Amino acid sequence: MTEQISLEPWQWPEEHWRKLVGHVRAGRAYRPKSWKDGARCAVALSFDSDHETNELRDGGKSIGRLCWGEYGARVCVPRILALLERYGVRATFYVPAVVALLHSEEQRRVIAEGHEIGIHGWIHELNSTLPYEAERDLMLRSADTLEKITGVRPVGVRTASWDFSPSTLAIEQEMGLAYDSSLMADEDCYELLLDGSPTGIVELPVEWVRDDAVYFMMHRFQSLRPYTPPTDVLDIFLRSSSPCIRTSSATARGSSSSRR
Amino acid sequence: MTEQISLEPWQWPEEHWRKLVGHVRAGRAYRPKSWKDGARCAVALSFDSDHETNELRDGGKSIGRLCWGEYGARVCVPRILALLERYGVRATFYVPAVVALLHSEEQRRVIAEGHEIGIHGWIHELNSTLPYEAERDLMLRSADTLEKITGVRPVGVRTASWDFSPSTLAIEQEMGLAYDSSLMADEDCYELLLDGSPTGIVELPVEWVRDDAVYFMMHRFQSLRPYTPPTDVLDIFLRSSSPCIRTSSATARGSSSSRR
Amino acid sequence: MTEQISLEPWQWPEEHWRKLVGHVRAGRAYRPKSWKDGARCAVALSFDSDHETNELRDGGKSIGRLCWGEYGARVCVPRILALLERYGVRATFYVPAVVALLHSEEQRRVIAEGHEIGIHGWIHELNSTLPYEAERDLMLRSADTLEKITGVRPVGVRTASWDFSPSTLAIEQEMGLAYDSSLMADEDCYELLLDGSPTGIVELPVEWVRDDAVYFMMHRFQSLRPYTPPTDVLDIFLRSSSPCIRTSSATARGSSSSRR
Amino acid sequence: MTEQISLEPWQWPEEHWRKLVGHVRAGRAYRPKSWKDGARCAVALSFDSDHETNELRDGGKSIGRLCWGEYGARVCVPRILALLERYGVRATFYVPAVVALLHSEEQRRVIAEGHEIGIHGWIHELNSTLPYEAERDLMLRSADTLEKITGVRPVGVRTASWDFSPSTLAIEQEMGLAYDSSLMADEDCYELLLDGSPTGIVELPVEWVRDDAVYFMMHRFQSLRPYTPPTDVLDIFLRSSSPCIRTSSATARGSSSSRR
Repeated sequence: MTEQISLEPWQWPEEHWRKLVGHVRAGRAYRPKSWKDGARCAVALSFDSDHETNELRDGGKSIGRLCWGEYGARVCVPRILALLERYGVRATFYVPAVVALLHSEEQRRVIAEGHEIGIHGWIHELNSTLPYEAERDLMLRSADTLEKITGVRPVGVRTASWDFSPSTLAIEQEMGLAYDSSLMADEDCYELLLDGSPTGIVELPVEWVRDDAVYFMMHRFQSLRPYTPPTDVLDIFLRSSSPCIRTSSATARGSSSSRR
Repeated sequence: MTEQISLEPWQWPEEHWRKLVGHVRAGRAYRPKSWKDGARCAVALSFDSDHETNELRDGGKSIGRLCWGEYGARVCVPRILALLERYGVRATFYVPAVVALLHSEEQRRVIAEGHEIGIHGWIHELNSTLPYEAERDLMLRSADTLEKITGVRPVGVRTASWDFSPSTLAIEQEMGLAYDSSLMADEDCYELLLDGSPTGIVELPVEWVRDDAVYFMMHRFQSLRPYTPPTDVLDIFLRSSSPCIRTSSATARGSSSSRR
Repeated sequence: MTEQISLEPWQWPEEHWRKLVGHVRAGRAYRPKSWKDGARCAVALSFDSDHETNELRDGGKSIGRLCWGEYGARVCVPRILALLERYGVRATFYVPAVVALLHSEEQRRVIAEGHEIGIHGWIHELNSTLPYEAERDLMLRSADTLEKITGVRPVGVRTASWDFSPSTLAIEQEMGLAYDSSLMADEDCYELLLDGSPTGIVELPVEWVRDDAVYFMMHRFQSLRPYTPPTDVLDIFLRSSSPCIRTSSATARGSSSSRR
Repeated sequence: MTEQISLEPWQWPEEHWRKLVGHVRAGRAYRPKSWKDGARCAVALSFDSDHETNELRDGGKSIGRLCWGEYGARVCVPRILALLERYGVRATFYVPAVVALLHSEEQRRVIAEGHEIGIHGWIHELNSTLPYEAERDLMLRSADTLEKITGVRPVGVRTASWDFSPSTLAIEQEMGLAYDSSLMADEDCYELLLDGSPTGIVELPVEWVRDDAVYFMMHRFQSLRPYTPPTDVLDIFLRSSSPCIRTSSATARGSSSSRR
């Protein structure tokens, strides 16, 4: 996007940091005047069915982590589907194409039970590490693969590890996707701007503190441990959602000039 | 197992990632129709008596960590044995051969009090770092050493650090072991498949969140700290066990096509 | 400040470590005989409006972290301002010059609502990594930029990441600043000494445990996770403040000879 | 101690790992038949007055961490001394010689108020990184320095960071010290063995989980954060002490053959 400048950030000309900051930006907010049935807020549940790809994208050498991924397909997804069915809730599953190829029946069941499947990369690769051609090719092939397996063309994407390259948004636009769910400039949905222009793509924002992997992930060779008990994680989820519940009737944010 | 391919994971041919994923896999589940005396579930308690080998396998330079290992033999195992005796519970101790040589009386007492001793490597080495011949030799010598000291031939193995090489399962099969306890593709026991074929070896699955070392381990030169209080760890153990209790009467998982 | 000595710290001559320790030091404490309206203590609330600069100063490559910074301007500052207004509280916002240039309206609103804006570096750069001329130039330009945007000349500084170079205090003195808020030799305010001489600059001390970023920061490629729930962080804030509350009527510290 | 062997630990001859493990070892336990006034257990409180040396030993470049050390002398030690006085408790302060030189009045006050001062290295250096001559010289000079300042010859040592070299125990023996407090092979005190021979030096064991620095330490450039609230740390301290309270009337440990 911007030519590589071999200066320290504190030496950058204003033009350079303005370009970096302005490349992908939040546009107008989408928030209905009121929620269905007078609800105070709406919550979307989504699940990233990474399964074995979490280890494969790092080289696939650990048999322990591969079977830890198998657990996702063998135990977790069925348990989640049963839970969603019990409460009559529809959710979205973001599925790498390699997972869809390994566990095709799972994806067909997800669709058959009324849920959505979104793009989640080819093998959970990091977009920001890819050449442009590879990123575009993998995105297109991922969409085709999911459609071929489930019969439904995906309309949204969550980039693997929420990792965005400078090209990601343009590729999403070229593909005519309806939404992205990898960024976090707001709690409400908003339109994504590319170099200042509206893209028509809606962002359904994520947030690290509302992602359970953050607390429960264990990686023996990194210092990641599941230090936080589930009770506390639930507390975090509830508290981090309460501002958005509260502000539904507040006007505080309307006066922010930086909002537009 | 598979020839080294100098491609990025997102460039791999399908054959390659299918081979990686399919090498060690979960087969049929073992779960009795009902548990003894109508219990809602069964829990296995096991202890890894690593003692000094946790430091030895990393080079054995830290006298602090060696005496921290000595504490395991001097204080912990006697305390655990007293606790098990008080409640009439039989457990399994996984013991590296070097520990058994250093603390032979301890192992004889463990066996004498009715517990099981399983293989846990020679000096707590990581299987995935070993040449095949060394891994096989150490596994065989570990079994021989434990048998010589305790008089009982071990029938199961927990690989040190739950670390599996591509050869581990084949060596276990050659040794005629009854079970492995290093993998985690399910909460129920299951048969291990090697390249798609049933091995007759039962997996007694572990899970990081149900291992207390995860929360209490301290390593000054890594960023590992015992951040989680015991009360919370107990809460984690109980909650992470409750799904398996609950599903004993549920049918949700029976409908998963990816189960077989 | 001191010529580089290629010795191990345990080989240093006494003169060397005395010079290091004595360079920036706490002088006389500032604590009123009593607090306004008989309050047991006074608490200052301050906010570092780093926004996009937290990522920019590291190279600005992550679009995810840039929009995470945008969230600060779009959602957080308005929410904080509304909260402060509700309780009639005045606070200080430390703002990198680049943030002030990106979000000028925000800064004008902060000032208009009666709050203070302090210097917080140019682009959140680490002072200790800068040549002297660059550090001085960035400090001066930051002050000028903030004044130009808000119409108010800042009188205090919080160095970005609380990072002090050997030159920082001298530059602050040259600029005639009234206070610094980057160090932590006491809980009360105190005068900063430069090589043993009073500078006239007051330190409003910070402390890691009373900074919420410490607990809630997430960095995917470092091992930082938001492990501590807000309830516990509040507990930490209250407990870490209670000694200062308690000692307001105690005499214990008056007898310390190392106080002066 | 042992010649360097360029083999992997799993290749070591038995003689080698036996030598490593047997070098510093726990001998007979010291536990009185009963505690004073029928108490269920005895607890020793000790404080490591590292102050500025924690940063100095790493190069002394961070002014922030140096003033964070100054806080120890300016605020913490007076507060701790006041607390100990209020409850009439005598404690031990382990003080690097450089700290004693920087804060001599503090050390004289500690002694004057009836507490003990023990050796804690010269500048908080890691013993295991030192040549033998340097380690011995620093230990002797540290003892001399403390004696010169306080008038009392120290009789015990806590090595900085509890770091033991293969020579540490022999130097302690040569110096005629009464005790060490850096190791952790038991919860009771015990005699240290050097290559199997009793040294006459008593170990007052430490444990990471009973050290508050473990939970509250913050290091910006490492991934150390004060994640655990004080309430939970107190819970950990109480629970980790309860076994030793409980076993005062139990016989479980008496039957351990590895105890002697």
